[in-house]
Amino acid sequence: MSLSNQYHCGHNSSVGDDMYELMSDLYPICRSITGDGVRKTLQIIMKQIPLKIKEVGTGKEVFDWTVPKEWNIRDAYIKNPKGEKIVDFKNCNLHVLNYSIPVKKNLSLEELKKHIFTVPDYPDWVPYRTSYYNDDWGFCMSHNQLLGLDEGEYEAVIDSTLEDGHLTYGECVIEGEQQEEVLISCHVCHPSLCNDNLSGIVIATYLARYLQDNAPRYSYRFLFIPATIGSITWLALNEHNVSRISHGLVAVNLGDSGKFTYKKSRQGKAEIDQTVRNVLRHCGKDHEIVDFIPYGYDERQYCSPGFNLPIGCLMRTPHGQYPEYHTSADNLDFVSPVNLAESFSIYWSIVNVLEGNKKYVNRNPKCEPQLGKRGLYQKMGGQKDTKAKELAMLWILNLSDGKHSLLDISDASGLKFDSIRNVADLLVMHDLLIECSQ
Amino acid sequence: MSLSNQYHCGHNSSVGDDMYELMSDLYPICRSITGDGVRKTLQIIMKQIPLKIKEVGTGKEVFDWTVPKEWNIRDAYIKNPKGEKIVDFKNCNLHVLNYSIPVKKNLSLEELKKHIFTVPDYPDWVPYRTSYYNDDWGFCMSHNQLLGLDEGEYEAVIDSTLEDGHLTYGECVIEGEQQEEVLISCHVCHPSLCNDNLSGIVIATYLARYLQDNAPRYSYRFLFIPATIGSITWLALNEHNVSRISHGLVAVNLGDSGKFTYKKSRQGKAEIDQTVRNVLRHCGKDHEIVDFIPYGYDERQYCSPGFNLPIGCLMRTPHGQYPEYHTSADNLDFVSPVNLAESFSIYWSIVNVLEGNKKYVNRNPKCEPQLGKRGLYQKMGGQKDTKAKELAMLWILNLSDGKHSLLDISDASGLKFDSIRNVADLLVMHDLLIECSQ
Amino acid sequence: MSLSNQYHCGHNSSVGDDMYELMSDLYPICRSITGDGVRKTLQIIMKQIPLKIKEVGTGKEVFDWTVPKEWNIRDAYIKNPKGEKIVDFKNCNLHVLNYSIPVKKNLSLEELKKHIFTVPDYPDWVPYRTSYYNDDWGFCMSHNQLLGLDEGEYEAVIDSTLEDGHLTYGECVIEGEQQEEVLISCHVCHPSLCNDNLSGIVIATYLARYLQDNAPRYSYRFLFIPATIGSITWLALNEHNVSRISHGLVAVNLGDSGKFTYKKSRQGKAEIDQTVRNVLRHCGKDHEIVDFIPYGYDERQYCSPGFNLPIGCLMRTPHGQYPEYHTSADNLDFVSPVNLAESFSIYWSIVNVLEGNKKYVNRNPKCEPQLGKRGLYQKMGGQKDTKAKELAMLWILNLSDGKHSLLDISDASGLKFDSIRNVADLLVMHDLLIECSQ
Repeated sequence: MSLSNQYHCGHNSSVGDDMYELMSDLYPICRSITGDGVRKTLQIIMKQIPLKIKEVGTGKEVFDWTVPKEWNIRDAYIKNPKGEKIVDFKNCNLHVLNYSIPVKKNLSLEELKKHIFTVPDYPDWVPYRTSYYNDDWGFCMSHNQLLGLDEGEYEAVIDSTLEDGHLTYGECVIEGEQQEEVLISCHVCHPSLCNDNLSGIVIATYLARYLQDNAPRYSYRFLFIPATIGSITWLALNEHNVSRISHGLVAVNLGDSGKFTYKKSRQGKAEIDQTVRNVLRHCGKDHEIVDFIPYGYDERQYCSPGFNLPIGCLMRTPHGQYPEYHTSADNLDFVSPVNLAESFSIYWSIVNVLEGNKKYVNRNPKCEPQLGKRGLYQKMGGQKDTKAKELAMLWILNLSDGKHSLLDISDASGLKFDSIRNVADLLVMHDLLIECSQ
Repeated sequence: MSLSNQYHCGHNSSVGDDMYELMSDLYPICRSITGDGVRKTLQIIMKQIPLKIKEVGTGKEVFDWTVPKEWNIRDAYIKNPKGEKIVDFKNCNLHVLNYSIPVKKNLSLEELKKHIFTVPDYPDWVPYRTSYYNDDWGFCMSHNQLLGLDEGEYEAVIDSTLEDGHLTYGECVIEGEQQEEVLISCHVCHPSLCNDNLSGIVIATYLARYLQDNAPRYSYRFLFIPATIGSITWLALNEHNVSRISHGLVAVNLGDSGKFTYKKSRQGKAEIDQTVRNVLRHCGKDHEIVDFIPYGYDERQYCSPGFNLPIGCLMRTPHGQYPEYHTSADNLDFVSPVNLAESFSIYWSIVNVLEGNKKYVNRNPKCEPQLGKRGLYQKMGGQKDTKAKELAMLWILNLSDGKHSLLDISDASGLKFDSIRNVADLLVMHDLLIECSQ
Repeated sequence: MSLSNQYHCGHNSSVGDDMYELMSDLYPICRSITGDGVRKTLQIIMKQIPLKIKEVGTGKEVFDWTVPKEWNIRDAYIKNPKGEKIVDFKNCNLHVLNYSIPVKKNLSLEELKKHIFTVPDYPDWVPYRTSYYNDDWGFCMSHNQLLGLDEGEYEAVIDSTLEDGHLTYGECVIEGEQQEEVLISCHVCHPSLCNDNLSGIVIATYLARYLQDNAPRYSYRFLFIPATIGSITWLALNEHNVSRISHGLVAVNLGDSGKFTYKKSRQGKAEIDQTVRNVLRHCGKDHEIVDFIPYGYDERQYCSPGFNLPIGCLMRTPHGQYPEYHTSADNLDFVSPVNLAESFSIYWSIVNVLEGNKKYVNRNPKCEPQLGKRGLYQKMGGQKDTKAKELAMLWILNLSDGKHSLLDISDASGLKFDSIRNVADLLVMHDLLIECSQ
């Protein structure tokens, strides 16, 4: 495959705007780990890419877990003693403790407060809270609002259902030349929160969209799943096929303006780890690479010891390291088309390296071949500098011994992967290099 | 075994005082590599722990060495021309060159000076000198005293014996569940010198004393031996059993106020090296870790290439790096109960890690087990932080693949070994973890 | 072998002066990759060492290359419109583009300028340029001279021949006890340029000269070859023997006053790499060690993947990193006898380490042997310091387990290789150490 470099190493405001627009469409939906919010989300994504929607019934055992009851919600509000709605799910779906059981009761302020969550440090923001595997109900509001509540009798109404149903997820496969797969995973269970994780959803969607026109070498599998239970369910249902996964990334927190952070796979020295490091080194942006830790997103499941897949997590600011995280402030203003486009270009560069990273053998391994007679080398000797392209030729010829990949050569030489790959193609054309059979 | 944490990571003034008192009892005795000074020393230690006293006869060949004649001394002095005793062994046993042959002669100041040793840089201190394998005699005194000596005829008397006899050492074994042993070695050949090495002796004694009440997993062998010839003799007599030694430390220089210094075993990456590094990292004290060098204490013999045992040396200030070293200034004022207690707590922590360091296997290696349904995980989702205990669970579950020990997990996670071990016990109780068979 | 340390670690003005004198004799000759200039150069070197001159015919295929036509030149000049010679080959052989085809023509200034090379940044210097595998002609001059040229008709004359003939190189072998070889390679194709590479030529010559009196352990092969085509030709003709090459260095840029720079072999951890690092560490001079890159001198060929020989490049300032490089300013003033002598002493130290680097086995591997009874250890105990020689004994005895070479022991202990080797000899004499059979 020869990936178009259209979105490579640069801001493409068009793809940024497109992703931002998709995010805006998805933003209002109240998602959870199950229910119609996920279905609506996937239906919107389906307009962009060939997505298959999968449904797994409540009660299905998936490793140590069980697919939970399906949660849906129609309405929720609190009325103050005067009968005024002081919080209303219809205005902001974060107001409801996600997965709340149905409730309809009158209660004192004191009783009500046991079911209210706020962020005292940011008193204008509404937090995001969940209670998935523990029957409970509650509301989230700004701390300032809580402080202003008068004594009296309140009415709390949550018109939700928690019933046997399904866990829903989406899967999009772009078939490549090979069965070996690259897995891109993002979670679709968060309600109106942009960076975590509508950003990952739109990056994954547009990666799939552009890849389908490129006839890639690898097959690409995109998972749009609820966090934790979604990856566990997918792994349980696809256990026999995970050996196909050669590389993977969890996509999250990709719309903020922070530097890029790559959390390595548990393996630590997998090709995906080498690839992301190489791309980030050459991208000219501030970035950080951190070791795997067993806390974070779905890489926790992919990298559990029984799977230990070569899957890392590439984000901008990690979870919990920005105050807007899991609050109403993680909204459409917190992310931007420019940041999304930049994140997309990094992901695209990574795909580009994975696609092009092969091993070759120098067909004239004894001494250098005479590049000059093939028009590949400067005619005039004695000068101080050799050109970058000639340096790339010498590096490739010297290290193409069947042990070093083009990525290894890029790392050793400090030359960009694209230069190395293009020059390798040139050397193949001149019969100086031959691809290793796998 | 579950070691009491009573002396763990903290100063226990009681054990410090107890050790200091024992040291005070041992201080006046004139020890050497053989003779009654060692016997008296071991008899005092025997009151604390079940010590066996071993005697090896003069002339016994031990590898390339031979057990020397036994040295004993009753009296020694120099009288000045006026007949006044100017140095007297009975006041300070350092005054005699250790292992001096008997002498009784009158001689000029000039002649006498050939047999006098001083420390010119510290003119008030009396040095400690020996002449073990070379028949000689001499006296040590302060440099100021030497400068004040008048011309005239002096009388030098050393009432010593150097005769066939025995080399004496002490051995204390605390039987554990396993035959595998931890060796703690200290030298008992130095006369009135506190840091080197009454400090090592009292630490070893109290470790043995507390371990005998704890039914440890490992067996513990404590050697109270003369330096060099003692470890060589013990290794020669126990050559067939050294394969039992799984870990070991040489205990020395543990009463001064300097930072901790760990000299790694020759292997360099043995479990004892990893253990001491982990304990020192978490102890909150300044410390240094240095590579093995073939100079120092009995680790020279334990780590000779034919044995190469996993034995390091944990001290405070290394030999030769404090001016009081091997002088009369290494006295009871130079060490303190507080320093001894702190050293003890580090040794106790090391024992604690060795005892608890095992490998486990996650019984649900595919994806995380559902901790919440077992009451092991927070009920409310969406929050920024996970608790330390939950993090420890995730680390243990993720790395317990049969390859990583609890100590490896402590190192990887940065969490204290005790937290890791306690949480591992909890996971075992919940059937989530199982100990690897050895 | 026991190499004389006469030139070891110090400036020997005599050898520096001798090398500088030889360089002065070689300086005026117009060398190229073929032709009489190389022959004259080799004949002068033959007066110093037993050199064999080899001739390889034009058209001989050597791997991917072909031995080119032989180039010789008798005269060359440019006459200005007044008929005055403005550049004259007889004054400075750099004036002619090396390997120029014959030319004799009148032409306008504009036409002439297409064949003129200068160094605008250093307008008084004449550059060195070549056109080996591309039929062309040209002149090199100072930029200031070019700027002063008037319009009018010029006459350009190059009285050269480019005909079937030979490629000439020199080879000097100093037979040692073993067939294993150390290869020292220098290029002899540059005309009047001192640092690159008359400096390498004279260092190689004097190394050979002093080695022949020393009955070395290794055999030493010195190659005096044209760059690139010379090493390719030699490798093609000697392909069956290269497995004898145990270590090697390319000698170049050794007369300037810059710090030493060692470019590692492609293997990176070969014994030559360890040796040079050890020597440079102990030489007390500023130096730098850089990784192999596939650009530079003949190490490009020796380290091509089909050979991958353990050959590095030891120079002072690397090519292209000093402005005088490949210009008329790389002349006899740019280099000095003192710099050459210092470079020689480093090369001599390297040879010395290679010669003496062996593995030994401690014959008393269990515990230390008793050095005192052999008179090898201080008699008086208790002192702070042990002597360097005793430390060396302890290091050698501890690490001589058949796995560590003397160089490894020097590296581990920080003690100079010479001290280690001398003490190893002493221990062998006392039957404490025995050389490993290879």
